[in-house]
Amino acid sequence: MPAAVVLLSGGLDSYTAAAAVKQGGFDLYALTVRYGQRHVEELVAARRVAAALGVVRHLEIDVELSRMGGSALTDDIAVPKDQPIDPAVIPVTYVPARNTVFLSLALGWAEVVGATDLVIGVNALDYSGYPDCRPEFIRAFETLAALATKAGVEGAAFTVHTPLIALSKAEIIRLGLSLGLDYGLTHSCYDPPPGGRACGHCDSCRLRAIGFADAGVIDPILAS
Amino acid sequence: MPAAVVLLSGGLDSYTAAAAVKQGGFDLYALTVRYGQRHVEELVAARRVAAALGVVRHLEIDVELSRMGGSALTDDIAVPKDQPIDPAVIPVTYVPARNTVFLSLALGWAEVVGATDLVIGVNALDYSGYPDCRPEFIRAFETLAALATKAGVEGAAFTVHTPLIALSKAEIIRLGLSLGLDYGLTHSCYDPPPGGRACGHCDSCRLRAIGFADAGVIDPILAS
Repeated sequence: MPAAVVLLSGGLDSYTAAAAVKQGGFDLYALTVRYGQRHVEELVAARRVAAALGVVRHLEIDVELSRMGGSALTDDIAVPKDQPIDPAVIPVTYVPARNTVFLSLALGWAEVVGATDLVIGVNALDYSGYPDCRPEFIRAFETLAALATKAGVEGAAFTVHTPLIALSKAEIIRLGLSLGLDYGLTHSCYDPPPGGRACGHCDSCRLRAIGFADAGVIDPILAS
Repeated sequence: MPAAVVLLSGGLDSYTAAAAVKQGGFDLYALTVRYGQRHVEELVAARRVAAALGVVRHLEIDVELSRMGGSALTDDIAVPKDQPIDPAVIPVTYVPARNTVFLSLALGWAEVVGATDLVIGVNALDYSGYPDCRPEFIRAFETLAALATKAGVEGAAFTVHTPLIALSKAEIIRLGLSLGLDYGLTHSCYDPPPGGRACGHCDSCRLRAIGFADAGVIDPILAS
């Protein structure tokens, strides 16, 4: 089976995107980036998810985005709680150029393992307005990838798979459940309380809660 | 003065590119990436060069590209010595997606410091055929940058300055000397011998030697 490099955060979306692409006939190489995120719990979740997916290899790499600051996820800026989620307003949880950095790293590893398929669980419907989750960004990255690489010069075309990009959060959850996924393995909260798994008030918790509610399913991390 | 984020390796090219852009009226923010390169001497050189340039800030960040392997610069692969330098053949010193990763990091930091100008010392004439040194790659990155970022969504256009891209190595050296640069601060060798600064046989040493010879100047790192 061909290989695909998937960006795996430990959250619900990347788990579902990876599973959908695996179902489509790919061996998965999972890449998790430790970028100084305050919610390090997601790194532990990424290991659980990678094991559940049966990936060929799970690579965790350190990239010190936190040295740059500029985001509530990496810097000493409060994570917004109970604020309106309006995709037209990019919140302070935006990490500058994060998905560009992540896809670049995935591209590099893809070249090393001989893959031309990348997977990212971005979603441009129930999301926080991050610019690097939109289809036009993904298409521009594919164009760049062909020009940036030895593989591209030799004629390869890179595909960035975004199976969730046009789905609602409820549709993502239904897709995952149809694939037999255990969302109890995942972590979404940006700012988990000590000893807890979810604050329930950040954008990520609330998008997740709305998704499970709309799907008519109890979130297993709340049930446990 | 407007700010520009410059990728500073400690080599001759990035020093010259930075100086040219500073001359053009920018305050410089220098970004050096420790990616597991075997020639760590260049990191020490980057500090010397950043000081000489009078940068506003010099940020060194760790990105574990060496965990991916796949290059003679980061992996247990011999650096080619005294091989023909043919830009049509990409050598094993190519680091998969390196400049894509580097420009992505520069883009992230640019957003944080409020800059829309990036600088990279790529050269597509006297070079090793790396795909991510070509003008078409740079243009594709600029397109991506506008789509990838909050600043882009808000209307900013990013410019990637490549003042060296069409110069010969001798022309680069002449430009730098006209700007008063001290190339004795720089490091180019991919595989320096213990205690030495240059092996004299890798592509990087040889391109540098040819450049100084063509410019009719003695390389100060050989004179010292």
